[in-house]
Order: sequence, then structure tokens, then C-alpha cells
Amino acid sequence: MTNSFNDNPHRRLNILTGEWILVSPHRTKRPWQGKTEKSAATDLPVYEPSCYLCPTNERMGGEFNPSYEKPYSFVNDFSALLPNVKEESYKNGLLYAESESGICKVVCFSPNHSLTLPLMTVSDIVDVISLWQKEYKELGALDGINHVQIFENKGDIMGCSNPHPHGQIWAQNKIPQEVHKKIGNQQAYWEKNGRSILEDYLEQELQLDERIIVENEHFVALIPYWAVWPYEAMILPKRKLAHIGLLSESEKLAYAEILKQLTIRYDNIFNTSFPYSAGIHQAPTDGKEHPEWHFHMSFYPPLLRSATVKKFMVGYEMFANPQRDITAEQAAETMKSLSNVHYSQLG
Amino acid sequence: MTNSFNDNPHRRLNILTGEWILVSPHRTKRPWQGKTEKSAATDLPVYEPSCYLCPTNERMGGEFNPSYEKPYSFVNDFSALLPNVKEESYKNGLLYAESESGICKVVCFSPNHSLTLPLMTVSDIVDVISLWQKEYKELGALDGINHVQIFENKGDIMGCSNPHPHGQIWAQNKIPQEVHKKIGNQQAYWEKNGRSILEDYLEQELQLDERIIVENEHFVALIPYWAVWPYEAMILPKRKLAHIGLLSESEKLAYAEILKQLTIRYDNIFNTSFPYSAGIHQAPTDGKEHPEWHFHMSFYPPLLRSATVKKFMVGYEMFANPQRDITAEQAAETMKSLSNVHYSQLG
Ligand SMILES: O=P(O)(O)O[C@H]1O[C@H](CO)[C@@H](O)[C@H](O)[C@H]1O
Ligand SMILES: O=P(O)(O)O[C@H]1O[C@H](CO)[C@@H](O)[C@H](O)[C@H]1O
Repeated sequence: MTNSFNDNPHRRLNILTGEWILVSPHRTKRPWQGKTEKSAATDLPVYEPSCYLCPTNERMGGEFNPSYEKPYSFVNDFSALLPNVKEESYKNGLLYAESESGICKVVCFSPNHSLTLPLMTVSDIVDVISLWQKEYKELGALDGINHVQIFENKGDIMGCSNPHPHGQIWAQNKIPQEVHKKIGNQQAYWEKNGRSILEDYLEQELQLDERIIVENEHFVALIPYWAVWPYEAMILPKRKLAHIGLLSESEKLAYAEILKQLTIRYDNIFNTSFPYSAGIHQAPTDGKEHPEWHFHMSFYPPLLRSATVKKFMVGYEMFANPQRDITAEQAAETMKSLSNVHYSQLG
Repeated sequence: MTNSFNDNPHRRLNILTGEWILVSPHRTKRPWQGKTEKSAATDLPVYEPSCYLCPTNERMGGEFNPSYEKPYSFVNDFSALLPNVKEESYKNGLLYAESESGICKVVCFSPNHSLTLPLMTVSDIVDVISLWQKEYKELGALDGINHVQIFENKGDIMGCSNPHPHGQIWAQNKIPQEVHKKIGNQQAYWEKNGRSILEDYLEQELQLDERIIVENEHFVALIPYWAVWPYEAMILPKRKLAHIGLLSESEKLAYAEILKQLTIRYDNIFNTSFPYSAGIHQAPTDGKEHPEWHFHMSFYPPLLRSATVKKFMVGYEMFANPQRDITAEQAAETMKSLSNVHYSQLG
């Protein structure tokens, strides 16, 4: 870059949400006397009798899981959204509310309690993607479901209450806040340029090659220019696909491969099972065409300096602006230099 | 309320930011097998030799603190913002950045290492407010400082690296993201109605009396209708004051009293030193009149079910929408019913 932004505080614009974030590259020398986290447990058993996600076990709601062998999904026993909620809206002076309905599901990635995405085979990850596709399509086709949010919370510091490899899907009537922002900016760009903003962004990133972590025939994993979390990353298809339902077989394989490679590198940063929240943003299922959408999967991992010291998004970040200490370029540099063999499998 | 929102999932609008949040009142029965936190340490010494905020001790940057007796502020040894950064802006295709400059300060609330706001006397809290006023005025008067963010991160689960009672101030050139949203909505309301939106909101809340925690002659502490965090609260003056510099002496006293009362009730919820991030949102210091502004102080505390189980804002919350399990009314009910004597001082 031809400016002083590698060393000096500056703001960067997230072109998808339209929001600015503060970058303080000079600040990484700061000592840390604060909270440390326990490093993630490893050496889990393949089957855990007390786990409510393992095959054949009883769930918290009293049902039993089948003896599943492939990725398996079911309706969350404690769903935050419920189907068929009576449609109402409420306005009283300055109080505004409206009913919401939807469905929450749990997606077990594997019957094997001890695995995580980076330790699964590519073909097993392909099966996870196939189940995501099926859910996106089926939930999205339901009456009154206009948005399907697929996500994974990994690690107990990300609020995940069970290490069994799993993610969630919350499908709902209203377009959620974050997605709403991304629709607006993608639409505006599409209308002006007849191309998706992420197509053009990706082309630029591939040319610059400063923030690319790993790339294959159909997919790229990169640290976005406007990353907030220390090692935040984004996986995106090279072809403009509005949603995961549109992946060709070879694209699906490439997606699985890049998912494995990105998560291996995550674990290799601090030789630990790397916690994160990951989510897929894609076209709403509101029946409209969404030519502006270019689906992408983002990873928000909190670890900053070690397996036990995380970045806190508190105080200033809550009241003012997200803030980060290392630049996106430094994070990409680190991740690029790591082995694509998982640390636990290195001789 | 004349609707089913006490029991059913719904969304509520934050009238200040214009953003929606998801409420799932039926979900509190969910069992918890996930991460628990250590309960906050108590019984700290009045003076701690290794604390870099105690009077006379050496700081991390090598300077020594004076033997201060009143609230004391200094420039952060590891400031995320720096003064006099060269003004630049950068645009390269879809990459947008701009320089930022500012000043970060630390505000020690008391020389006594063992205290927290609820354990300080009202007159000592008045001194903290006086220092906040001085900093807001002096920092805000500096060339190129258009916004002064006063905040406190309390507790190690809120990223606070030192239990010595202290807060921070980050003053900067650009208007931060969160504040930007609040300016827009307050301005629109002011232009339309000639009153501040918070004046009218407060009037309505006082009439309804469903979310008020505690009130005195000049101040109110309430759970906002659109609260995100389980026990999120807002302190606001009854009179429309654009910033804390405008408080009369009796208002300042009332503010100190309500700060003490709110934080005592927080500690009394789970008989623990209650963690939170708190921040004051007030008029920018950009030299313009800001008749739309009604300053307010918000508290974002993470604890949900006990001193060791917090609400995680992860996955769905990051990718879609903030989500809460208990309603604002339930939280207010709990907080209203608590003693206003600190649990450690009850016989
Ligand atoms: O400067 P501190 O108190 O060590 O740092 C704390 O507050 C800052 C401002 O909210 C955050 O950016 C840091 O992540 C947090 O750990
Ligand atoms: O996996 P759980 O137990 O449903 O819950 C977890 O994910 C949810 C969705 O991101 C969050 O609302 C919860 O705070 C978190 O603990």
C-alpha cells in the first residue's frame, strides 16, 4: 500500500454492511494481564454416553437420536423461534414490536463425537454441505420462511454447549438485521454495475494477492480488507452463486476442500482446536430473484495472541466501533505461512 | 400489553439505532451444559503493590502514578488511537480506508483498589462524574476531536485486565458507527416533533411503569423496551441535556445516586460483583449545536442465569440479529424487587 496505514490507526469500510471499523496496527505490543481461557479439550471419545448429539442417545427433550451414520439434522429441542406464531404487530407510542415465527434446527456434522471439520475427510464434509443444501431448500420453501441462517458456534468460549461437531440453522419470516444491511449494499452495486460487488471484490483481491489464504479451482478463502476479528476469514465461490443450492458437483467438492484447509490452518495458528462462529450469508428465500447475491461464508474467531488470550469486543467496540489490533494483511501473512497438514497429524 | 408477546417470539425496535432485536420469552427453561465462568474475585486489598493503577505504583509504560486521592486520569500507555496522525484517505477499487486520530485515556475511579462503583460513597461517585465532565470538555475542545466516548469495562469476562476501579475514554476525529446511527434517528425525531425522542420515550415509560428500575428527582434507570443483554439498563436524565457538561449540581448528585443504586442492584442479582460494559452516549464535540441529543448511559451486562453463566452473543447474533431469552419486563421485575443495600453489607 502506498500509504502509512500499515503502522498508523485508520478506519476501513466494510463494503457489504456499509460500516466502518477501527484498525490500530501499532498496538500489538500491549502486555496482557487479563483473562485467559482454558485451552480447548482434545482427545474426546468417538462415542460419549452422556452426549445428547451422539447416535442412539437420548436428547434433552426426551427423544432418541437414530443410529445415524451421515450428517443428521433435527428440530432444536429448545428453539428460539417457533412455527405458526400468530401474526401481530404492536405499536404503542415509541414502543414497536412485531411477532416472529420460524424453525430452529441442529445439524450434526458427524456421528463421531471426537471430530471437528478440519479432522473430517473431504468427502464427509461434502455430506455436510449436501445437508445444508437440503435444509436451505426445504426450509426456504416453507410458507412464511424468508430467510435461512446456517451457522456453527465452535468451542465453549463461543457459547457452544457441546463439543460434538454440529451447527445450527435458524429459519424465519423476517429478514435479520445483518442480512438486511448486506442486501442493500449488494443491490445498490448490482443496479449500478450489473455485476455483484463480491465478484469485483474477489477479482481485485486475487490481483493484489495480499489477503488470500488459500485458493482452489472454484473457491477462495481470504481475510477481508475490513475484517473485525483477529483472524476473521471469508470463503467465497469464484462464480457468482446466490445460494449454496446452485453449487455444481465439482464446486461442492472444492467448497469442502477449502473448508477443510481453512479450518486446518486455524487449528495450526496456536496448535489448538480453534474456536469461532461461522455463518453462511446467502439470498433470502422470499421468492424473489436475487441477482445481486454472491453467497459467502464468514468465520469470526476470537483468539488473538494465543490459545488462551482472546480479543474482547466490549466497551469501545460496543458503544462506538469494532476495533482490531493486527491488520488484515498481517493475519493473512500468518495464515498463509502455516502448514496445510493439521498439527496433530504432523510427525 | 394487549398482545401475546409475553410468551411468544417477537422482534422489538431500538428507536435509537433503528435496529431490530429478537425476543424468545419461552426459552428460559433451556438447560445449560456449556461454559461457566469463575465468579468474580472479592476481598481485594485496598492497596495492591503489583497493580499499575494504584497510587504511587509504576505503570506498564514506565511512568509512576502520583499519590492520588481523588479520581485520576492519564493517557493510556497502550492507546489504540494516536494524536496527530497524518490525514489521508485511501481508495483503491473496492478498498476504502481513511486515517484516524485521537486520544485514549484511563480514568481511575478511586485510589482504593478494592472498591467498585456500588461500594463507593455517593460523594466519591460525584467526583468521578466531575472528572468525566472535565475530560469531555477538555478533550472535546481539542482541534480535530469530534467525539468523546466514556466507558467502563468491568470484570474479567468483559475484557477488563485489572480489577482496580477504572474506566476509559477514547476521543477521536470521526463519529463512531454506533453513535452515527443514534444521531440520525434522534435528529429525524427532533426535526419532526421539536422534542427529543428520549424525552418522549421517558415520559411514556414513566407512565407505563413496567420497565423502570429506580427513579429519583432528576434521573431514571430503566430496562429499555429494546434491551439486548439480559439485564441491559439505561440511565437517563429527566431533563433533555445534550451532554454531561450541562448537569446542574443537584442533577450531578442525582446521577451519582442512581449510578450507585443501579450497580448495587446489579451486584444483588446473583450476589456477585456484576460484570458489564457501560458507556455514555452524548452529543458529538464537533462544534455544532445538537438540540436532538439527550445523553444517556447504557449498561451491557452479560450474566444471564447465575454468577457463572452468561449470554453468548455468537452465531445467530453475529450473523443475523441480537437475540434475548428473558423479556425486558421480566428483567425489570427482578431488578425492581431487589434490595438497594449491597448484599455484602446486609446483616
Ligand atoms: O485497554 P484494555 O482495557 O486493556 O482493553 C479492553 O478494552 C478495550 C476497549 O473496549 C478493548 O479494545 C479490549 O479488547 C479490551 O480488552
Ligand atoms: O447452541 P445453543 O445452546 O442453542 O446456544 C448458543 O447459540 C445460540 C445461537 O447463536 C445463542 O443464542 C446462545 O447464546 C448460544 O449459547
